[in-house]
Amino acid sequence: MTFATHAYGLPESLEGQPYTLATYYLQAESDENADAKAASLAVGQSIGTWTEVPGVTPEMLAHHLARVTGVYEVPPVELRGQLPDGQRSYIVQIAFPEANFGDQLPLLLTTVLGNDISTAARIKLLDLRVSRELAGRLGGPRFGLEGIRQKTGVTDRALILNVLKPCTGFPPEAAVPWFEESARAGSDVIKDDELLADVSFNRLERRVRLFHETAERVYQETGHRALYCANITDRADRTLENLRRAAELGADLVMVNAVAAGLGTLQAVTAHSQLPVLAHFAGYNAMSEAPGSGLASPLLLGKLLRLAGADAVSFPSPYSAYPLLGENFARIARALRLPLFEIKPSLPVPGGGIHPATAARIVRELGNDVMLTVGGGIQGHPGGAGAGVRALHAALRAAAQGQPLAEAAKESPELAAALDRWPA
Amino acid sequence: MTFATHAYGLPESLEGQPYTLATYYLQAESDENADAKAASLAVGQSIGTWTEVPGVTPEMLAHHLARVTGVYEVPPVELRGQLPDGQRSYIVQIAFPEANFGDQLPLLLTTVLGNDISTAARIKLLDLRVSRELAGRLGGPRFGLEGIRQKTGVTDRALILNVLKPCTGFPPEAAVPWFEESARAGSDVIKDDELLADVSFNRLERRVRLFHETAERVYQETGHRALYCANITDRADRTLENLRRAAELGADLVMVNAVAAGLGTLQAVTAHSQLPVLAHFAGYNAMSEAPGSGLASPLLLGKLLRLAGADAVSFPSPYSAYPLLGENFARIARALRLPLFEIKPSLPVPGGGIHPATAARIVRELGNDVMLTVGGGIQGHPGGAGAGVRALHAALRAAAQGQPLAEAAKESPELAAALDRWPA
Repeated sequence: MTFATHAYGLPESLEGQPYTLATYYLQAESDENADAKAASLAVGQSIGTWTEVPGVTPEMLAHHLARVTGVYEVPPVELRGQLPDGQRSYIVQIAFPEANFGDQLPLLLTTVLGNDISTAARIKLLDLRVSRELAGRLGGPRFGLEGIRQKTGVTDRALILNVLKPCTGFPPEAAVPWFEESARAGSDVIKDDELLADVSFNRLERRVRLFHETAERVYQETGHRALYCANITDRADRTLENLRRAAELGADLVMVNAVAAGLGTLQAVTAHSQLPVLAHFAGYNAMSEAPGSGLASPLLLGKLLRLAGADAVSFPSPYSAYPLLGENFARIARALRLPLFEIKPSLPVPGGGIHPATAARIVRELGNDVMLTVGGGIQGHPGGAGAGVRALHAALRAAAQGQPLAEAAKESPELAAALDRWPA
Repeated sequence: MTFATHAYGLPESLEGQPYTLATYYLQAESDENADAKAASLAVGQSIGTWTEVPGVTPEMLAHHLARVTGVYEVPPVELRGQLPDGQRSYIVQIAFPEANFGDQLPLLLTTVLGNDISTAARIKLLDLRVSRELAGRLGGPRFGLEGIRQKTGVTDRALILNVLKPCTGFPPEAAVPWFEESARAGSDVIKDDELLADVSFNRLERRVRLFHETAERVYQETGHRALYCANITDRADRTLENLRRAAELGADLVMVNAVAAGLGTLQAVTAHSQLPVLAHFAGYNAMSEAPGSGLASPLLLGKLLRLAGADAVSFPSPYSAYPLLGENFARIARALRLPLFEIKPSLPVPGGGIHPATAARIVRELGNDVMLTVGGGIQGHPGGAGAGVRALHAALRAAAQGQPLAEAAKESPELAAALDRWPA
């Protein structure tokens, strides 16, 4: 590594130039030099190749070479007799000059996850700290948590997002009664499943038109307007075309399967959208679940989707069959709402196994500023979808006031029935 | 933890206020919530106590509350089935507002190592990233690596620091012939052992006077002036008095047993010294060797002593009986010389098991900008101390030019004899 000795520095060595600080988990054999490996990654993922090439100037090094800023062994041994058997583990931090990728998320991901890193190392990307400059250029959500709250008119409790089920396989007309029932029951937002977008048997254009009419009709009759979130996911150019048509025809929000479609597509949608954008997590598992590779879900589903402009982000709850760690669940929500320069908070949208008891638990853990994705917990209520939504409302109001559910159930037979069916 | 939910943030949440970012290794039980533990440390080591107290204002929170900026589990599991047996390990980063400690290193150490951290957690401090403001106020070395080189007049090879042996137990007069022999042999710097300072049987004042005269006499006769580094360590007030007297009486450098005396004493010495200051590592082991507590040696011996103004820092080599990991050795040297705002590099001074073969190896690993502490490798040479220093000179010149020692030994019988006695 000709340049390896130049690849150490403090973030301060890039001072005056905005940089993104990447935090990795790195595994190495006992006899490998992790410092050298980290330096090699910093070089390989910025100006370097595996061998010296002509044309590298001091200016290139100063402005474009990534720098290793920390290599922390876990456990942090200092003496030979303290070495663990077999593999050793490290947290490595590398500062990448943002000039190398600008505000282009696909090129940023290529830099922090690319060739040398994904093929040469056993490494997982855990965090990215972008500069104020880059955060400003990425922009984050246009509406965010507060903007979506304003559209629903709900200020004092967690929001309810009903997913229409079955997921797919039906024409738009068949879903109108389901949409209507959910809207009448008082769902705040109703959305397509991630498995349904613009397909041959269920065209987006037709669906948006029908659901918009239905929402209007229910509003005229009941005074409650449920918002419709349309899944516009397709190849990039068609996704943007779907966005334009969905907005024209009356969708209130749009959804992009952001991991499956790619962050570049999400970025294009949020740049053009006049509607709040919900980013769905489907497929994230393939990138995040392995402890030793890929990128951590609080980064992918939390910080990156928020920076890419997602106003709301759906992610799995730990209260379903999916064995997500509770800590990780809280970290995703935290990454969506933590102070981050002037970037607005995104609305956390947990889903999976949510009924009144788990809904109240999530509000205790994450607070009111969430939108809960509920399917079976509404449609599966013994008294039907209407009773299901009312039971949830009662549970969320109780949770917002710190009132035990058992007490609230005394005044809501629908909540009592739900707690009977789905105990805490 | 009343304030725990306020203790999460990005470093950016402290933007506009200088902060020091502390990196810790933290162990926790499988069922402990490490995020909550980290938040509790951030609160406990800044404005908080273990319970709510009156008087905490939003301004206090904004300007003085430390913030957790990262909790990275190692390995970074996301699912319940991936949990390790028994304890879990984390790297935690916490940003501390520098207003809380100013440029006072003892208060900084109290903050990042104090009560809650040392008594409530299984935790080791691995790194501190200070702001440009704090680095500027601490100031770092006045002379540094380059300043000491200039005083020796040696520009093209590693420097030789001879320690007078035996360590202690003799009067100043007894050591004059040892000093003279070492100076005549061509040692660049000659220093007291860390076990000898101002003691009843060997007063610093008398020793400095005698050694200074001896160095002058050898210079008049040979043209080579060996520099004398006097150990001024004592209680804080006397250390400063020792500094004043040593400088008046002709010492060229002063040494402080910086870990044993404390960083506050070192800081006072470097603030007042007109001579380069060598900080000695003795006693650091007690603070650094445990993987699960204390603070890492690259931070303590590297970055902190440099920030405290040490122009040179002695630390153990991995080529003696002491089982220091090679990586850790390199990290200490790196911390002393890496770019760090406008702070000058400190001169790394490895010691332990150094003879021509290990000296050449250290130069290959760390480069020429080191001063090698040699005792037995000089005085133990078969041809005596003069031959010992000349053998080292030959080895260091060869190492500086990338010449194999075996080849250099063809032109230096003294190097050949040293390599016979102490093979590579």
